[in-house]
Amino acid sequence: MSAIEELITELARLPGIGRKTAQRLTFHLLQQPPEQAARLASSLVAVTERVRPCQDCGNLTEDQPCGICRDPRRDPAVLCVVEEASAVGVVDRSTDFRGRYHVLGGRLSPLDGIGPESLSLDRLVRRVEESGVREVILATNPSMEGEGTATYIQQLLAGRDGRVTRLARGLPMGGDLEYVDGVTLAHALIARQEVG
Amino acid sequence: MSAIEELITELARLPGIGRKTAQRLTFHLLQQPPEQAARLASSLVAVTERVRPCQDCGNLTEDQPCGICRDPRRDPAVLCVVEEASAVGVVDRSTDFRGRYHVLGGRLSPLDGIGPESLSLDRLVRRVEESGVREVILATNPSMEGEGTATYIQQLLAGRDGRVTRLARGLPMGGDLEYVDGVTLAHALIARQEVG
Repeated sequence: MSAIEELITELARLPGIGRKTAQRLTFHLLQQPPEQAARLASSLVAVTERVRPCQDCGNLTEDQPCGICRDPRRDPAVLCVVEEASAVGVVDRSTDFRGRYHVLGGRLSPLDGIGPESLSLDRLVRRVEESGVREVILATNPSMEGEGTATYIQQLLAGRDGRVTRLARGLPMGGDLEYVDGVTLAHALIARQEVG
Repeated sequence: MSAIEELITELARLPGIGRKTAQRLTFHLLQQPPEQAARLASSLVAVTERVRPCQDCGNLTEDQPCGICRDPRRDPAVLCVVEEASAVGVVDRSTDFRGRYHVLGGRLSPLDGIGPESLSLDRLVRRVEESGVREVILATNPSMEGEGTATYIQQLLAGRDGRVTRLARGLPMGGDLEYVDGVTLAHALIARQEVG
């Protein structure tokens, strides 16, 4: 296989990138100064060599423990539970949450054979018990599996001290009521809040 | 900048890949065996180190001259003129063209300051004169600039022996040759018409 074919094949392995896009990217890179491809290549190597899950929370990090777990200004008694490490940055950038995180490493999905033992639930329970956690915020995805996972964790932590909360469900900002699905709308009605 | 941030930044430099997609790709790669990112990295390095324009036709290749220019079964007296090297593979896969190619390295675009001296036109004229070319097929993109470039080359070659043809109209205006389906392209080659 030629070098060009090989790069196209490797790029096309990425999610959402088909062969045509991979070709376009390859020829684009060939028209740039070679440093651009070199920098991309070395970033790829650096990421896979240096980035590991945080030993405490499971967030992807170059340091152990990660910057969030090491930050003394963050409250270790409030844990935000997310499915994937990619959600940590999203929550942290968009909200003023200043507790710590716990990355499950997925969601319960019995049909795909993903049971509780596949997720970092033992570690979550241990953290809750050992660190005197006051509140566990369940921030799993608003999908069937995310909801199921949240319910499972809620039951797992039942009877322990401290609160277990979930992100509010309701209408997304910028949406149009006509395009909101029925489940969301029903939740939004149930959780309606007094104004004025 | 962290390794993750760096990879996101490098991926987001690619055309059509925004920051969100770059993030998604990065986290995807971090969930794959590290060999996948390593293979992608080494393909990137291999392409930029080994691939060069062919000394004869300008096609991107690991060999000098390229496989097409070296192929004795291909007719050196028929030249297919394309804007970019990426078009060579497209034409060659979709049609039964068995001549050789000439890559211009772009298209005339006075507004962007791209004049005739930016394209490999001297080399095209030299090839036409030295190799006893019987036919030059103009396969520039069906865009305003591609049409203008074809017209310019047609005038440049006027008065010389041999035919100058263009891919049949029927290609959608405003399109890009790489995104035209193979059947249309094959028809366009068969129905190529004499100009000038």
